[in-house]
Amino acid sequence: MKVFDIEGFPNPARVRIALAEKGAMDQVEFVPVDVMGGEHRTEAYRARNPDATVPYVELEDGSCLSQCTAITEYIDGAFEGPELIGNSPTERARVHMMNLRAEAGLVDAVGAYFHHATPGLGPDLEIDQNAEWGLKRKEVALNTMRYLDEVLASNTYLAGDAFSMADITAFAGLAFADFAEIEIPAELTHLAAWRQRVAARPSCAN
Amino acid sequence: MKVFDIEGFPNPARVRIALAEKGAMDQVEFVPVDVMGGEHRTEAYRARNPDATVPYVELEDGSCLSQCTAITEYIDGAFEGPELIGNSPTERARVHMMNLRAEAGLVDAVGAYFHHATPGLGPDLEIDQNAEWGLKRKEVALNTMRYLDEVLASNTYLAGDAFSMADITAFAGLAFADFAEIEIPAELTHLAAWRQRVAARPSCAN
Repeated sequence: MKVFDIEGFPNPARVRIALAEKGAMDQVEFVPVDVMGGEHRTEAYRARNPDATVPYVELEDGSCLSQCTAITEYIDGAFEGPELIGNSPTERARVHMMNLRAEAGLVDAVGAYFHHATPGLGPDLEIDQNAEWGLKRKEVALNTMRYLDEVLASNTYLAGDAFSMADITAFAGLAFADFAEIEIPAELTHLAAWRQRVAARPSCAN
Repeated sequence: MKVFDIEGFPNPARVRIALAEKGAMDQVEFVPVDVMGGEHRTEAYRARNPDATVPYVELEDGSCLSQCTAITEYIDGAFEGPELIGNSPTERARVHMMNLRAEAGLVDAVGAYFHHATPGLGPDLEIDQNAEWGLKRKEVALNTMRYLDEVLASNTYLAGDAFSMADITAFAGLAFADFAEIEIPAELTHLAAWRQRVAARPSCAN
């Protein structure tokens, strides 16, 4: 499998953490994408990933997958190691539900703030900003942090007792919030303790 | 299982179609939500579904699930009948990828247009509109239709040869587009043929 990504960005981190949890980082080939040069917006790139997002992966048969949740589904099923999405219908549903909340409410909301209400990746790439929208999404991100803190008051991890894809997504979302200079409210102590717990995992240490 | 929803809305339709595909419509109890009265924005509702969305489901143990993709994961695993998400890691990943494209690019994009750039559900419920954002999302919805048409030029269903959750999501998205008066471009003949094929399924006939 080839992973087309860029180091240090939040969505690429989600796939890298999933691979590291499976102990599979050395079983894949990483190919850098020139995001700052706009490579992900070219026709050649879109032919392989119509979402024009980073990362995407190329499987052995040459087909490509994008969307971190879909890539993580593949990684979870295709590689040995700890389950990242659960086994029973209830577990799987809960992981997907919490993952979607963390994705829409944190990763995507922080992304909307960063790309629409700050200089983002600069004027060459941020050609279609809507500051009002971006500022509203910052509020959504902060509300999501408060919600996750409530969940973590009585759960070790976001979908229950086991570390899962949902934790990966939320962890990447908080890193993105730091990068976008959205201050994580200090009173969210359960969220902070969980973050420290997750950061201590070898998969998340980089 | 109890399904809290409202008939005739796009996201509720996604869960109802999934249940009908499983032949499970008479195994669940439907409880109407007073969307026009704002029931989904009350504290009592949010305590059961923090997303404040419709639908959500209550499982036998009293726990609640929201997010249509997560609910469909549960339905697919918990009920007999045809697979809606696939079996192999590649199938599952592809269904989730196409489902996310149909959700973000069609259902959610049409929803953003409807709620932000039209009167939507009326002034009591649409208290935070951003018309510029809504109009941009209409363009995203139209681009997604064009993309799905391309996919369907060489595939029977969105994730390959088998009907899946991704088809359900896109089918509900097109119904939402009709409702929001976004005209589906007439030249998208593969999309139109697929829509007719899906509409002929007993699960989608209502």
